[in-house]
Amino acid sequence: MLRLDPREERIRSARRFEVSEGGGEYNVGRAVRTVFGVPVRLLTAWVDNPVGRLLESLVLASGVDTRDVIWRDPAVPGVRNGLNFTERGFGVRAPVGVSDREFSAAAQLGRTDFDWPAVFAPGRTAWFHTGGIFAGLSPDTAALTLDGLDAARQAGVVTSVDLNHRPSIFRDDVDGARAGSTFEALVRRADVVFAGVADLTGRLGLGTGTDGSFPALATQLLDKFPEVRTVVASDRRVRSASRHEWRVLGLDRDKGVLGSRDYDLEVLDRIGGGDAMAAGVIATLLRGGDPQDAIECGAAAGALAMTTPGDQLVADAAEVARVASGTPPVAVR
Amino acid sequence: MLRLDPREERIRSARRFEVSEGGGEYNVGRAVRTVFGVPVRLLTAWVDNPVGRLLESLVLASGVDTRDVIWRDPAVPGVRNGLNFTERGFGVRAPVGVSDREFSAAAQLGRTDFDWPAVFAPGRTAWFHTGGIFAGLSPDTAALTLDGLDAARQAGVVTSVDLNHRPSIFRDDVDGARAGSTFEALVRRADVVFAGVADLTGRLGLGTGTDGSFPALATQLLDKFPEVRTVVASDRRVRSASRHEWRVLGLDRDKGVLGSRDYDLEVLDRIGGGDAMAAGVIATLLRGGDPQDAIECGAAAGALAMTTPGDQLVADAAEVARVASGTPPVAVR
Amino acid sequence: MLRLDPREERIRSARRFEVSEGGGEYNVGRAVRTVFGVPVRLLTAWVDNPVGRLLESLVLASGVDTRDVIWRDPAVPGVRNGLNFTERGFGVRAPVGVSDREFSAAAQLGRTDFDWPAVFAPGRTAWFHTGGIFAGLSPDTAALTLDGLDAARQAGVVTSVDLNHRPSIFRDDVDGARAGSTFEALVRRADVVFAGVADLTGRLGLGTGTDGSFPALATQLLDKFPEVRTVVASDRRVRSASRHEWRVLGLDRDKGVLGSRDYDLEVLDRIGGGDAMAAGVIATLLRGGDPQDAIECGAAAGALAMTTPGDQLVADAAEVARVASGTPPVAVR
Amino acid sequence: MLRLDPREERIRSARRFEVSEGGGEYNVGRAVRTVFGVPVRLLTAWVDNPVGRLLESLVLASGVDTRDVIWRDPAVPGVRNGLNFTERGFGVRAPVGVSDREFSAAAQLGRTDFDWPAVFAPGRTAWFHTGGIFAGLSPDTAALTLDGLDAARQAGVVTSVDLNHRPSIFRDDVDGARAGSTFEALVRRADVVFAGVADLTGRLGLGTGTDGSFPALATQLLDKFPEVRTVVASDRRVRSASRHEWRVLGLDRDKGVLGSRDYDLEVLDRIGGGDAMAAGVIATLLRGGDPQDAIECGAAAGALAMTTPGDQLVADAAEVARVASGTPPVAVR
Amino acid sequence: MLRLDPREERIRSARRFEVSEGGGEYNVGRAVRTVFGVPVRLLTAWVDNPVGRLLESLVLASGVDTRDVIWRDPAVPGVRNGLNFTERGFGVRAPVGVSDREFSAAAQLGRTDFDWPAVFAPGRTAWFHTGGIFAGLSPDTAALTLDGLDAARQAGVVTSVDLNHRPSIFRDDVDGARAGSTFEALVRRADVVFAGVADLTGRLGLGTGTDGSFPALATQLLDKFPEVRTVVASDRRVRSASRHEWRVLGLDRDKGVLGSRDYDLEVLDRIGGGDAMAAGVIATLLRGGDPQDAIECGAAAGALAMTTPGDQLVADAAEVARVASGTPPVAVR
Amino acid sequence: MLRLDPREERIRSARRFEVSEGGGEYNVGRAVRTVFGVPVRLLTAWVDNPVGRLLESLVLASGVDTRDVIWRDPAVPGVRNGLNFTERGFGVRAPVGVSDREFSAAAQLGRTDFDWPAVFAPGRTAWFHTGGIFAGLSPDTAALTLDGLDAARQAGVVTSVDLNHRPSIFRDDVDGARAGSTFEALVRRADVVFAGVADLTGRLGLGTGTDGSFPALATQLLDKFPEVRTVVASDRRVRSASRHEWRVLGLDRDKGVLGSRDYDLEVLDRIGGGDAMAAGVIATLLRGGDPQDAIECGAAAGALAMTTPGDQLVADAAEVARVASGTPPVAVR
Repeated sequence: MLRLDPREERIRSARRFEVSEGGGEYNVGRAVRTVFGVPVRLLTAWVDNPVGRLLESLVLASGVDTRDVIWRDPAVPGVRNGLNFTERGFGVRAPVGVSDREFSAAAQLGRTDFDWPAVFAPGRTAWFHTGGIFAGLSPDTAALTLDGLDAARQAGVVTSVDLNHRPSIFRDDVDGARAGSTFEALVRRADVVFAGVADLTGRLGLGTGTDGSFPALATQLLDKFPEVRTVVASDRRVRSASRHEWRVLGLDRDKGVLGSRDYDLEVLDRIGGGDAMAAGVIATLLRGGDPQDAIECGAAAGALAMTTPGDQLVADAAEVARVASGTPPVAVR
Repeated sequence: MLRLDPREERIRSARRFEVSEGGGEYNVGRAVRTVFGVPVRLLTAWVDNPVGRLLESLVLASGVDTRDVIWRDPAVPGVRNGLNFTERGFGVRAPVGVSDREFSAAAQLGRTDFDWPAVFAPGRTAWFHTGGIFAGLSPDTAALTLDGLDAARQAGVVTSVDLNHRPSIFRDDVDGARAGSTFEALVRRADVVFAGVADLTGRLGLGTGTDGSFPALATQLLDKFPEVRTVVASDRRVRSASRHEWRVLGLDRDKGVLGSRDYDLEVLDRIGGGDAMAAGVIATLLRGGDPQDAIECGAAAGALAMTTPGDQLVADAAEVARVASGTPPVAVR
Repeated sequence: MLRLDPREERIRSARRFEVSEGGGEYNVGRAVRTVFGVPVRLLTAWVDNPVGRLLESLVLASGVDTRDVIWRDPAVPGVRNGLNFTERGFGVRAPVGVSDREFSAAAQLGRTDFDWPAVFAPGRTAWFHTGGIFAGLSPDTAALTLDGLDAARQAGVVTSVDLNHRPSIFRDDVDGARAGSTFEALVRRADVVFAGVADLTGRLGLGTGTDGSFPALATQLLDKFPEVRTVVASDRRVRSASRHEWRVLGLDRDKGVLGSRDYDLEVLDRIGGGDAMAAGVIATLLRGGDPQDAIECGAAAGALAMTTPGDQLVADAAEVARVASGTPPVAVR
Repeated sequence: MLRLDPREERIRSARRFEVSEGGGEYNVGRAVRTVFGVPVRLLTAWVDNPVGRLLESLVLASGVDTRDVIWRDPAVPGVRNGLNFTERGFGVRAPVGVSDREFSAAAQLGRTDFDWPAVFAPGRTAWFHTGGIFAGLSPDTAALTLDGLDAARQAGVVTSVDLNHRPSIFRDDVDGARAGSTFEALVRRADVVFAGVADLTGRLGLGTGTDGSFPALATQLLDKFPEVRTVVASDRRVRSASRHEWRVLGLDRDKGVLGSRDYDLEVLDRIGGGDAMAAGVIATLLRGGDPQDAIECGAAAGALAMTTPGDQLVADAAEVARVASGTPPVAVR
Repeated sequence: MLRLDPREERIRSARRFEVSEGGGEYNVGRAVRTVFGVPVRLLTAWVDNPVGRLLESLVLASGVDTRDVIWRDPAVPGVRNGLNFTERGFGVRAPVGVSDREFSAAAQLGRTDFDWPAVFAPGRTAWFHTGGIFAGLSPDTAALTLDGLDAARQAGVVTSVDLNHRPSIFRDDVDGARAGSTFEALVRRADVVFAGVADLTGRLGLGTGTDGSFPALATQLLDKFPEVRTVVASDRRVRSASRHEWRVLGLDRDKGVLGSRDYDLEVLDRIGGGDAMAAGVIATLLRGGDPQDAIECGAAAGALAMTTPGDQLVADAAEVARVASGTPPVAVR
Repeated sequence: MLRLDPREERIRSARRFEVSEGGGEYNVGRAVRTVFGVPVRLLTAWVDNPVGRLLESLVLASGVDTRDVIWRDPAVPGVRNGLNFTERGFGVRAPVGVSDREFSAAAQLGRTDFDWPAVFAPGRTAWFHTGGIFAGLSPDTAALTLDGLDAARQAGVVTSVDLNHRPSIFRDDVDGARAGSTFEALVRRADVVFAGVADLTGRLGLGTGTDGSFPALATQLLDKFPEVRTVVASDRRVRSASRHEWRVLGLDRDKGVLGSRDYDLEVLDRIGGGDAMAAGVIATLLRGGDPQDAIECGAAAGALAMTTPGDQLVADAAEVARVASGTPPVAVR
């Protein structure tokens, strides 16, 4: 999606917007590529007009491979490029997003649009990441996502899913039944699950008989979904839009309870913090890193992502490692 | 609609967009209000989210009255605020617009949305302007527009219609039949018709047996549609995106053939030139001005509108009169 | 006034200024209109040149009604549109304002300029807000303000006054006598008085025999001025230009001592915080709200106003209510 | 003065202004210093507040010496720093300036403010340039200017005067008598007079019995004012705000009629073109150049000044010489 | 190189620079990739610091493949990323560039840095484009370039060379001998040569016994260098920095004299016009197009490149074709 | 040097840079001039091209005298104007600088470039400040600096040196020997030494047998270098890039241990904080102030410098005094 950002202004009073690209699953892949140097391919759809070409250019600038993107004919009515207007918040003022992704080319993707066996052809792909936002756009995107996860698993590709529930998806799902069953189906196909306490107790319905803590909920999840290897959650206490207490928690089937150092963060723009965290975790695991190191790397990546405008983690791996080590941010000249 | 404008950049390579409000029929009303000082009410619909509130603020800033605007609930899926990405062009490079108005609140207006008798209650309204862009969005907007014109005429309100055909409307109208019949119905209900040669020969099917000139076509129109009093057209020869030959032509049932002075224009942003022209014509006629003066005022208003960024005519009435008189643009200090 | 704001730069080194509209009494009305949806009319004067038209457009954009504004002829020497250059401050660096409002059309208003009986004609006005800044511009503006308050009271309109003393007004009032008598006259005509401890002990000369606390001072005020119903003060401890402790205190003749929750605020631009506070109080009382709720609403409105650039409260009523309830600023998407 | 410039926007719709310094007489000195490398001192007055310090910094950046500037106490009411809002115009749209210099420190200068003998102490000054804008601000500035010219002449310093009449000066001079006598007094004290046909026929009342051409008018001037050595005028035909025909004409008591090459100019911002022209003339004569070369240099300097935003000539002497030679503007890399 | 561009300001007075990527040979490849859709790889070197990563991101955004770029260690002294400060010019004011590429990583490339056989491995490359700017940086870059051309020819890859002489290269080549021999060596290895009249008569020493016209010079070149198949030149008459007469000429060994339509161009930023022209020619020939069509496509591509800020051709192939066909730039909406 | 600053963006993702001037020793002089009103001359070298002229203009704007600057011929290869790309950091993200000063005109200065006796001619200079950054650029700049210090001392001019070690200088000094001996030589010629704990224990090799505290190290320095009168250090604890604990410490041969108040600072851009501190110390001592007052003034100056973008202290002396007194930053209007 194209993010339109009024920087320190608010959407309702702005006269100028900076644009960048964003979107939960993409943000993860972008950071894995740009920051950690792992080749990444994006699977989505755009309309072939100047706005679509702007999106392509923004994505290409990060080094993500766009060859698998599907281009829709701009002459056909009823399909658009997805947008979001998002302002960052400050102090007591919360970040606000106006999602404008209905009828987007991505939201209208269906089961026949990707050739999954080709995507996961031997040697082509090592990890497949997807999530609840894309799956929540429509029953078709949900089905498409589950197909992809099945195909990935069949090909021996590691899978991860970020549930990432928010009010602007599953908008027509009045009683939450579709969201719940979709989330369960996603988790059942994931090696690594990114899910906060709200995701776990909400759509997944966990928590009965526990103290509601992340370790207890994650233990329930590992019990209920034997396919899952690791559960990861960001744990954020919003003191203000400009100040968050932040850490990352995890439960690994082999390594047990995991946790990063605690951060008391100055926040410039929190959007994308969770995605950068997932990127740090995935990039570490992809390289055979230890789950505890992955959690620490994810926490640092997420913390850094919240220090720049836009959704993205703009940093290099050495900076992430420096933050992860707890070294203070002294000037480098 | 919200116009997103990359100024001297192109949409596909921009990283920043200036926003302003635009839209054919609105642009006319805005200029009538801001430049010529006539109170104007806007009839449209917006979604009540920060983007809608941004639109409201932009419209209010011009002094146009927004009390009749219908606000849609942002929690209901399937309805958006309309946008357009538009770049101005330069030299051999043409202006480019990416209209993103599908599923907009305005495009989904229907026959029951406005209380026409109240709109045209005695003493409330002197003129009603609408056009082919709005009517072309859907069969419902067409019906709504015709209802409004009928109600206006019944109430003794002067009506005007700008046909303003362009590829991005009537997109699903494969053989043009719907466009043609809609345009005919609009013209049949208009006292003043704004229609270029392409409108007249295209959707209205005029021109058979003529030399294709505007006077000939306009004569045919007056013959075929006895309700119409005046036909007005901008006549533009695009030497480059930065240079236009420009004049305004007219045919009045009483005053005969009308024509403005010829302009050799430097153009900064041509978008909205035709709308400002219509505003100059309407404002003059509203005040009981002579049709020839109206044409000259419209030509000057259109010329001035093309000297500023954005769709709008940013000027005052004295400046329009100065340009209409042919006085050169000497510095005023 | 037109505010020229160098954003994160300083006036003395800036090469670009963002403009917005500001001015104590106006800011209150603007927030009452834009944020709380109450129709508001502005009474002031501008010079009819492009700067005046810029001011008009900025005010209109907020929905405030400008029909009562007096326009001065630009050809007459000696009258200007008022400006202020204001920078926001940061950390140990204080906000700085350079007021350039001398000889402004507003500052030259006199007793004959407004037709007070018409302004307060039955059914036209429910509340009249004014303050010490405008009254302090000259003996004439003081007299005009008192006339307005008298007329309002006579018409049964609720009145409020924000004393809002600052060095840039009453500049020629060497011994403070004029300021003191003007402030007393204002208070004597107000139902609701906004006055901090400095106002109360300074120009109003209260505090003798008390502990100097707001409740003690406000009690003295209610004793001395039986016409006043409620006294309200913001209570701000400036830890740095970027961090304020903030709360709002009140004393109501019926409800006694009032107080909002305490805020530990990150501040982007403190200018206008007090005005937004007054707007929150007035809007609540106008709707028949409880004084304690008014204080809480005012505190939240003021807090939010300090999170955006410019003087204004850029927010909607739901956001103010969210802040007033103490809910943390979690992202809304 | 501080120029506030909305660049390609208009004052009435801008939300951002770029600032630079400007003012007729200053512009001349600035170009003489920055472009032609001659040390220049500025004689004016500013208020010592951040706006005054901004002006100082802008002037210093050009290398002009500000040590003689008089600083006014900001605590004293009734004195300001002068401003002007100026937009550049485009095509049929004229440049517009809103002068806001009333009550400025400069406009309130009087006869006792400068120590003319010290200014023109032996060896300190070679040329004194002033003009009708400053002299026209008040009877006091007129007297001060004449004193300066007298002192300069007495000290053997060359003097030049740019009449530069415009509606925003001598605003209270209803019948033009004060302007006329002031202009005559200025000319009587000048070695070099910059005066267009409008200046010569207007306030100076020349032209009777002539064909109204510049050579005829200038001849009359040399006849009437035997102190004057050279008269110079820019001759501009405004085809549009973006296109001027431009040349410079002169009449020298020794060399006779002078004239530059003809230019068909693309104009970005015409403000300051005449000032840069004067600078080119003065700098050439100061170095003992030939009057015809001075005219050619002035024409090129003026032409270049109109190719950049702001009042100033931003160029170096080699560029001026290249333009003066008629060489086309080929890229230099 | 990183281009720092003050937009409508001048370098010497700017306070803000927009950055983009540029460089003669790269610009050609970028347009071939972005506009005409042909995969392109870039061979250069950058220092691995944030400025180098900025360059990488700018190049990636165009879709050009950076995998062959050599990254230098930032800890090693003496090597930098190349920059240029370039302003666009306007009217009589010429474009100005300050090249700051000395000691750049690219300028320090040598013969061992690229593995030419691998670059031209079978099936990997169809066309190799290079030029006189890169070859002129040092004797080492010249040798490296000739090696590459030899290897390309050996592998059956088509080669093209743009001589593109300018004062900022071969700076230490006092008598021009090195430039002359290098240019000859380049031409001897090129299938397609881009060389204007100045290149042909200057460093290549052609023209003796001819009328100095492009066809005569190009004929001499084809006679002297039997390896060359086609010579192409832009033919530009600079009426002002904002207005060029423009066309493209060619001589093909098989097709004879070629020439595009004539353009009377409004120019926003001429830098890169010649590179875009080369891209249009190469892309057409690569697809087996006719040389005359290639010339026409090149002329249109060059014309369009001069309508946007920056070095680059920002357009799509349909726009180039539209311009090549002579269709006027009517708004597309 | 020219600082290129992406403001709240990062270098690697920015598309726009604001420029200002910077450089350790210059920053000190600039603040002494602009903030404390002491005339200052700059000794450096620039290349005479538009970038050099931009630097000159930026320096002139501060009032620093540039008449002693050496201008290099732009036609001579191998010499540039120095640049640095510097981003400010935020929260856990550290400031990052990419120094691009190799081969700069300043870095290539040598012993014969300045006429030291003329610089320190009687009555011309009261204080000479230099430092380790400039001396560290090359053996030649080191020798030049030592010459200057010797000449200054001989002329009775007070000298100060800021060691200011950082990785980007002495880059080819593998074992640190050259840095160490240079630093010793500098200190031996300084009345006032600015050196943090890292400088003292690092290149100067102090600390053996002490507790490593600043007073202990400074005592060792005063013992070892009897020429030194005062040692000053900023003492900064970086809690995050946006929050520093800050104070200034000193040891004076006469007054003993000195120390400023403690600051808990919000930091916008820390670059230049130490330079502004040195300016506050020097300006106080120059006026005969007490060393303890100098330390307090330096701490306040440094604190203020970190509240604005860019390297510079943008403030006036009254503001520095207000901060030094511990008064909170209340709005001034």
